[in-house]
Amino acid sequence: MKTIVHPPKDTWRNLAERPVMENRELENRVREIMLNVKEGGDKMLLNYRSRFDRCDDGQLVVPAEDIRNAEKKVSRELKDAIHLASGNIEKFHSAQRPEDLTVTTMAGVVCSRKAVPVERVGLYVPGGTAPLFSTVLMLAVPARLAGCSEVIICTPPGKDGKVHPAILYAASISGVTSVYSAGGAHAIAAMTFGTETIRAADKLFGPGNQYVTMAKQLASMWGTPIDLPAGPSEVAIIADRSTRPEFVSADILSQAEHGEDSQVILTVTDENILPAIYSSLEEQVRHLPRRREIEGSLKNSLSLVFENRELLMEFINLYAPEHLIISSSDYRDLSSQVRNAGSVFLGSYTPESVGDYASGTNHTLPTNGFAKAWSGVSLESFMKKITFQEVSSSGLPLLGNATGIMADAEDLAAHKLAVDVRLEYIKKSFEKPWEPSIH
Amino acid sequence: MKTIVHPPKDTWRNLAERPVMENRELENRVREIMLNVKEGGDKMLLNYRSRFDRCDDGQLVVPAEDIRNAEKKVSRELKDAIHLASGNIEKFHSAQRPEDLTVTTMAGVVCSRKAVPVERVGLYVPGGTAPLFSTVLMLAVPARLAGCSEVIICTPPGKDGKVHPAILYAASISGVTSVYSAGGAHAIAAMTFGTETIRAADKLFGPGNQYVTMAKQLASMWGTPIDLPAGPSEVAIIADRSTRPEFVSADILSQAEHGEDSQVILTVTDENILPAIYSSLEEQVRHLPRRREIEGSLKNSLSLVFENRELLMEFINLYAPEHLIISSSDYRDLSSQVRNAGSVFLGSYTPESVGDYASGTNHTLPTNGFAKAWSGVSLESFMKKITFQEVSSSGLPLLGNATGIMADAEDLAAHKLAVDVRLEYIKKSFEKPWEPSIH
Repeated sequence: MKTIVHPPKDTWRNLAERPVMENRELENRVREIMLNVKEGGDKMLLNYRSRFDRCDDGQLVVPAEDIRNAEKKVSRELKDAIHLASGNIEKFHSAQRPEDLTVTTMAGVVCSRKAVPVERVGLYVPGGTAPLFSTVLMLAVPARLAGCSEVIICTPPGKDGKVHPAILYAASISGVTSVYSAGGAHAIAAMTFGTETIRAADKLFGPGNQYVTMAKQLASMWGTPIDLPAGPSEVAIIADRSTRPEFVSADILSQAEHGEDSQVILTVTDENILPAIYSSLEEQVRHLPRRREIEGSLKNSLSLVFENRELLMEFINLYAPEHLIISSSDYRDLSSQVRNAGSVFLGSYTPESVGDYASGTNHTLPTNGFAKAWSGVSLESFMKKITFQEVSSSGLPLLGNATGIMADAEDLAAHKLAVDVRLEYIKKSFEKPWEPSIH
Repeated sequence: MKTIVHPPKDTWRNLAERPVMENRELENRVREIMLNVKEGGDKMLLNYRSRFDRCDDGQLVVPAEDIRNAEKKVSRELKDAIHLASGNIEKFHSAQRPEDLTVTTMAGVVCSRKAVPVERVGLYVPGGTAPLFSTVLMLAVPARLAGCSEVIICTPPGKDGKVHPAILYAASISGVTSVYSAGGAHAIAAMTFGTETIRAADKLFGPGNQYVTMAKQLASMWGTPIDLPAGPSEVAIIADRSTRPEFVSADILSQAEHGEDSQVILTVTDENILPAIYSSLEEQVRHLPRRREIEGSLKNSLSLVFENRELLMEFINLYAPEHLIISSSDYRDLSSQVRNAGSVFLGSYTPESVGDYASGTNHTLPTNGFAKAWSGVSLESFMKKITFQEVSSSGLPLLGNATGIMADAEDLAAHKLAVDVRLEYIKKSFEKPWEPSIH
């Protein structure tokens, strides 16, 4: 890790910048795959599945029996841990249910709003060396709580041509309705456009490699919303003398092991605490696998020493980290100053890994500075809000008059007419008895 | 308007489909404009401004004096109407403030969430023949309520090279911080990437023509979030014998006058009410300007007669209209069945135009079927939510154990290590007194 002491402000923007990811070639390849699946349906999807997922069994649908049997293939210990995590996620996300609201904005004018589940959601669960069952919990548990009527998963088959039992087990306990064995951009295309087997989803969720990420970006551009634009994972850590160096170094490593493109920004005001953290880092890394990922990631990582806490917090808010660990006994004051971050880990006993799995918060978070305007996945990500308005015959005259004046000023005569025909009718009704219908 | 009686279900998808808008040529042109502004800053922006906005004065920034003086150029009557609308919008959007929440998910594990304003928002206000000051209210009022620290507007200069006073007046009363006189894709590029004069915004809002829409789609793909993907405006109307034909026909026209690409879907179960609506339509249209827009739009529009209400509501939810007018005395029962819509207008005295301007709901709504997964603009559109977690030394053992088991199963050893170093320390602390720091 490179250490920079008292970085001048005009260098901050550079320090906070993530690598730019515009890649026209990738975009064009993914676009072609997606449009081919749109056109060719299942046949094209299976075609790409044998090419990219290296699976020729033609079996897109994971049989219900495999899902039921997954339970037997997962250790008792892991099942218990999954249940603990799922329970915490359920508790925190249940509390997020938006309340319906009703407001009388003026006499005779009632505006209201209610939250309604998105009906069909498509979850992407990456494959690779390790089965990311935690992603299943983080997406499917809130989807079920929101009341989505269809929750489908696409996930690539493993080397044995099967979806990993831990993924199937997590899916079975979180109310997933179907699991499809397909990964990559072609799977995202299937969920975006629908095929004979896979119905189109109304919204897409989940992490993935660069093909999946690009496919989700294109899906979003074409109108299917996505949870979040994705980038490599990252953490910012605030550390001071009140924490222990081996806590900080282990937090650095747990971010770094995600991959060479992960980034760690360690921020301190006291330069003297760095040597103990670095030496603990060296000691800990020796016992870990994934040293290639860790070494690559630490090359992208930085320790920044600031003159004071105000500057430190200003930089943190400019960087807008996906994860922010405040490893300090003074975490209350510091956390009250956070304006841009995905999820914040408070105090010395809250490593990021508890939030990655089990504390109850969601681990699907805005990377790449997106925390400036995006929230992480929540119950609301699986719902939308519909507004209603109801104007009574006594409310319309005042509101309608203002509406007419504004419509006139915007040159929209029929907008005014829609008010006027009603006002005229109301006026006439005063003069003669109400006719419920003229037909 | 074409009438279809009892459309068979296998035709519904087609009936509900909006024209596909993929346009590679447009995309490439807009991409070029945006990347040029990214590269060339103000100079390139001014270049495009003289080419597309036909304004050569080089004055991007609307002077504060012009904004102050706008008040004098707007009629008393219009100012009153704007204040009435702004007051209602403020009342309804204030009620949308998300509550912070704190949940103890298990002993010693506290998860919380708070909503924080997006700092810098960029609003696009279209120019054209009429000044869309209503758009200013719908976007700037919630932005101010949310607490955004910078609210900027880009809007093209009119034929006289000036921004319309009604837009400036609406901006001045809703807390807008700067107004820039520039429109089109180049203005969106400026707000996305920033120039010497215009700071980059964290999120973009507002309607626009096809160039603006495409520019926002590209901005969104590159990571700057947008309010909504845009499409032509549309309304679905449910009408029955309890309403008056001239109300329905005026509602149809007020949608149709938006432009030739607008769409109206009138749905009924009683075919016999259609003739009176059609003849009222013919009568009303004679007195309206914008007949080209109306005739064009009515060509894209449909009356659908369903066998019963259940089928009618099923179709409405498939269509997912931006606006839904339930012109029926039975609007309570019908509105309870709405699952996909942007904003709903209840009963005979609630024309869409009151919601377009003044009832208090937002008029920035999901078109194009996006209401299946998107909500209209709300206070929350100008905020993001940050989660926090705090684990105590007594909470970590149980949570940390589950975390370690799951991290192990996902092959993330350092994630487990971050828990283990803490658990070890806690265990040791039982044996000897706490050391606040080892440095």
